[in-house]
Amino acid sequence: MTAYDELLEHARTTMALSQVMGRLGWDQETMMPRGAAAQRSEEMAALEGVLHARRVDPRIGEWIERAEPPDAAGAAQLRLIARDHQRAVRVPERLATELARATSISQGVWAEARERDDIAHFLPHLDEVLRLRREEAAALADGGDPYDALLAGYEPGATGAGIAAMFERMRPRLVALRDRVLGSALHPPPLRGLFPREAQLRLARRMAEAFGYDFSRGRLDLAVHPFSSGSGADVRITTRVAEDDPFNCLYSTIHEVGHATYEQAIDDSHALTPVGQGVSMGVHESQSRCYENQIARSRAFTGFLRAKMTEEFGDLGLRGADAFHATVNRVAPGFIRTEADEVHYNLHIMLRFDLERALITGDLDVADLEEAWNARFAADFGLPVDRPAHGVLQDVHWSIGLFGYFPTYALGNVYAGCLHQAMRADLPDLDDHLAAGDPAPATAWLRDMVQRHGGLYEPAELITRATGAQPSEGPLLDYLEAKFGAIYWV
Amino acid sequence: MTAYDELLEHARTTMALSQVMGRLGWDQETMMPRGAAAQRSEEMAALEGVLHARRVDPRIGEWIERAEPPDAAGAAQLRLIARDHQRAVRVPERLATELARATSISQGVWAEARERDDIAHFLPHLDEVLRLRREEAAALADGGDPYDALLAGYEPGATGAGIAAMFERMRPRLVALRDRVLGSALHPPPLRGLFPREAQLRLARRMAEAFGYDFSRGRLDLAVHPFSSGSGADVRITTRVAEDDPFNCLYSTIHEVGHATYEQAIDDSHALTPVGQGVSMGVHESQSRCYENQIARSRAFTGFLRAKMTEEFGDLGLRGADAFHATVNRVAPGFIRTEADEVHYNLHIMLRFDLERALITGDLDVADLEEAWNARFAADFGLPVDRPAHGVLQDVHWSIGLFGYFPTYALGNVYAGCLHQAMRADLPDLDDHLAAGDPAPATAWLRDMVQRHGGLYEPAELITRATGAQPSEGPLLDYLEAKFGAIYWV
Repeated sequence: MTAYDELLEHARTTMALSQVMGRLGWDQETMMPRGAAAQRSEEMAALEGVLHARRVDPRIGEWIERAEPPDAAGAAQLRLIARDHQRAVRVPERLATELARATSISQGVWAEARERDDIAHFLPHLDEVLRLRREEAAALADGGDPYDALLAGYEPGATGAGIAAMFERMRPRLVALRDRVLGSALHPPPLRGLFPREAQLRLARRMAEAFGYDFSRGRLDLAVHPFSSGSGADVRITTRVAEDDPFNCLYSTIHEVGHATYEQAIDDSHALTPVGQGVSMGVHESQSRCYENQIARSRAFTGFLRAKMTEEFGDLGLRGADAFHATVNRVAPGFIRTEADEVHYNLHIMLRFDLERALITGDLDVADLEEAWNARFAADFGLPVDRPAHGVLQDVHWSIGLFGYFPTYALGNVYAGCLHQAMRADLPDLDDHLAAGDPAPATAWLRDMVQRHGGLYEPAELITRATGAQPSEGPLLDYLEAKFGAIYWV
Repeated sequence: MTAYDELLEHARTTMALSQVMGRLGWDQETMMPRGAAAQRSEEMAALEGVLHARRVDPRIGEWIERAEPPDAAGAAQLRLIARDHQRAVRVPERLATELARATSISQGVWAEARERDDIAHFLPHLDEVLRLRREEAAALADGGDPYDALLAGYEPGATGAGIAAMFERMRPRLVALRDRVLGSALHPPPLRGLFPREAQLRLARRMAEAFGYDFSRGRLDLAVHPFSSGSGADVRITTRVAEDDPFNCLYSTIHEVGHATYEQAIDDSHALTPVGQGVSMGVHESQSRCYENQIARSRAFTGFLRAKMTEEFGDLGLRGADAFHATVNRVAPGFIRTEADEVHYNLHIMLRFDLERALITGDLDVADLEEAWNARFAADFGLPVDRPAHGVLQDVHWSIGLFGYFPTYALGNVYAGCLHQAMRADLPDLDDHLAAGDPAPATAWLRDMVQRHGGLYEPAELITRATGAQPSEGPLLDYLEAKFGAIYWV
C-alpha cells in the first residue's frame, strides 16, 4: 500500500468509529433507559479514548509526509486529515481527559441549574470548563488568536475579527427592520387550537419525504431536543411535538431534514472519509436554515401548507393564505434563541458571540457573566430578563465547552441568504413548484451545488462556487427586508 | 497503580467497548434503517479490530505475571482475563480477520438459502467457515481436542466426551417418556383464535415486570428473533408477536427476561468487568429455561395465567385449568428446534451435537451433512424432513461458525433441572405464590444463588454451591417425567 492508501485506511477506520460514537449519542437521546446513564458515559469515554489515540497516532504525520494524493478529492482528504491531526496533537492528553470529565459533569449541573434557576450552583463548573477551554485554545492557537483557534474547530477559515466586522455591518439594518416591523400596525396572531400528536407526526414524515429525506437510510424519532446525527447510509433525525403548536414539530423536522439530507447526499465514493462529511457547522446550518426558512416559510410554500394543514387539522381560524403566511412568520421579541423569528435570530447570536469572545480573551469573568448578559439583552431586545433560565442559562453550549460555536448559526443564515439568492436566479419558476408543495427543484439545486461535495472545498470556496460571489451578509438582509416588508407594510 | 489495577482498568475499558459492540448489534436488529447494513458492517469491523487489538495486548501477559489480586473476586477476574487473553493470542490475526469476513458473508447466504431451500448455494460457504473454524480450533486446542477448545469458548469446563456421556444417559429416559406421551390417549389441542398484538405486548410487559425485569435499566422492542443483549445497567430484550399464537410472544419474553435479569442482577461492584457478566452460555440458558419452563409453564403459574389471559382475550375455548396447562405444555414432534416442547428439545440438541462434532473432527464432510441430518432426524423423530429449511438449514449457528454452542442449550436445561429441584426444596410454598401470579420467591432464589455472582465461580462450581450437588441430568429427567406424567397419564 502507498502511504496515501495507508493514511486513508486509517482515516476510514477512525471515521467508522466516530460514527459509532454518534450512534451512541443518538441512542442516549432516544432509546436508552434512564438508569443506564452512568454506564453509558463510561462506554463513551472508552470509545473517546480510542478515537483520541487514533487521532494523535504518530504514523499519521509520517504518512502525510510521504503521501501523494491521486486527485483533487485525495488532496482534500490529505488537507482535512492533516488539519485534524495537527489539532489533536496540540492538545495534551491530560487536558483532553480533564475537559471530557469537566464538561460531562458541568452539563448535568447546568441542566439542574436551568430547571431551578440556580445559577450560583452552575458558575463554578462553568468557570472550570472555561479555564480548561482557554488552556486548550492557547495550545491550539500556537501563538495566534485563541478564540479563532476554537472557532476554526467548527468553521475553518472564519475569524473572530471577520465575524465581528460582519455583525457590525448587519446590526443597523437588522435593528431598523426589527423596529419597523414591531412598530407596524399588523400583529399576526399565533395559531390557536389542539393539534393531535399523531397527525402532526404524519405531516412531519410526509414533509420530510417531500424535502428529500431518504427513510431507507434514516429514521425519525422523538427526543427532547430535535437533532440530526450520523453520516452516509445511516443519518437519523429527531423531532418533538407540542400539541398546541404544530409549527414546532413541522419546522423542527424540516430543519433537521436540511442537516440530514446534506449528509445523505454526499457522493458515496467519499463515505466514511473526512471528505464524506458536511464541511463545516456554518454550511450545515445553511442547509437546515434554507430548507426551514427560505423554502418552507416562503409565501408560495405556506400557501400549499395551509391547505394541507386544513385538511389534516380542520379550519385553522385564519383568514386566507396571506394571514397564514404572516402567522408562520410572526415577529415578536422573546428571551429564547431557539424560538426566535428570522428577524431577531441573529441578534441573539451577536450577544452570545461578544460575551463568549470576552470570556475567552479574559476580558469578562464568569462571575460577571449574568449581569453582562442581562444588560446586553435589555439593550438589544428592550426586555428585562425575568429569570436565568430565560437568560444566560438557556443554552447548553457553554456548559459543554462549546465556545466559538454560536457564530456558525449566524454564518449559516448568511450562507443560506447567498445560496437562496443564487438558487432563485437559477430557478425562476421555483415558486410554482413550492405552491404545489414540491420543494424538489430547490433541494436538487442545493444537493448539486453544495451537498454532494461534502468536504471537497473549504466553506467560503464552496459558497463562492455555488453562487458566483464571496459569501456576504447582503443577500440575507435583502431577503429579510423584502420578505418582512411584504408581510408587514405592503 | 499496581499491576492488578492496571490490568483491571484495561479490562474495564475493553468491556465498555464490547458493550458498545453489543449495542450496535441490538440497533441492527431493532432500529437500523435497512439501507445502512453495509456501512454498519464496516463500523462493526472497525470496532472488532479495536477489541481484538486490546485482547492480544502484550501488556496483559506482563500485568498478569505481576498482579496480586486483593480478594477472591480479584482472583476470579485474573483467571477470566488470563483465559480470554490466552485464547485471543492463540488465534493469528489473519485467521481472525478471515473468519469475520467469511462468517459475515456466509450468514447472508444462509438466510437466502433457507428462504429458497437452496442448500447447494450455501454449502461452499459453510465449507469455508468450517475450514477456518477447524483451523482456529486446532490453534486454540494447542494439541488438545479441537471440539473441546471451541466448546470452552461458550462453556468453560465442559468437554465433548462429558456431554456425549451425559447424552447417552439422557436419551433412553427421554425417548421412553416421549414414546409414552405420544402413545397416550390425550392430545391437547393448540390454542385457536386471534389475539390482538397490543394486548399480547401489554401482557408480555406485565409478565416481564412480574419476573423481575427492571425496565429502568432496559427496554422491550420487537425483532425478528427474540434476544437479550447488554450487561449491567443497560440490558435490552426483544420479542415477537404472532397474532394466532399468544404463547409465542409471552414465553419468548419470559425466556429473554431470564437472560436479562441474570445480567441485571450481577453485583454492581463487578459492572464492566469480566466477573460482571453471566459466567457461561449454559448457565445463562439455565436461567431463561427455568423462568420459561419450570416456573412459567408450571401447573400453578398456568392456573394464574389462564385467568389473566381470559381477562385479556376473552374465553380461550379450553375446559378448565388442567386443559390449559396441557395445551401450554402440549407435546408434538416437529422439525424446528426453537418450537420444540420440553420433551423433544434435547433430542434436537443431541442430533446437532453429534453432527457438529463429526464436522470438527473431520469424520463428516459438509457434502454429506444434509443426508446425515435427514437420516438422523428420521431415526430420532420418526418424520422425514420435508425441506432443507425444516432441516439442516433451520439454525443460523453453523453459518456464523458457532460450532460447540448447541450443547450449551442442553446444559442449560440440565442446570435448570438441578436448580429447580433445590429451589423447590428451599421454597415449599412456592406454588402458592405462583398460583397467585407471583414468581418473585423463585426469581429471588435464583438471583441469590446464581445471578448475583456473575463470573465469580466456574459453571459447575456455581451449580454445586447453589444445589449442594454436582450438576447432573437426573433432576431434569425426574422433573420431566413427573410433569408430563401428571398431564398425560394421571
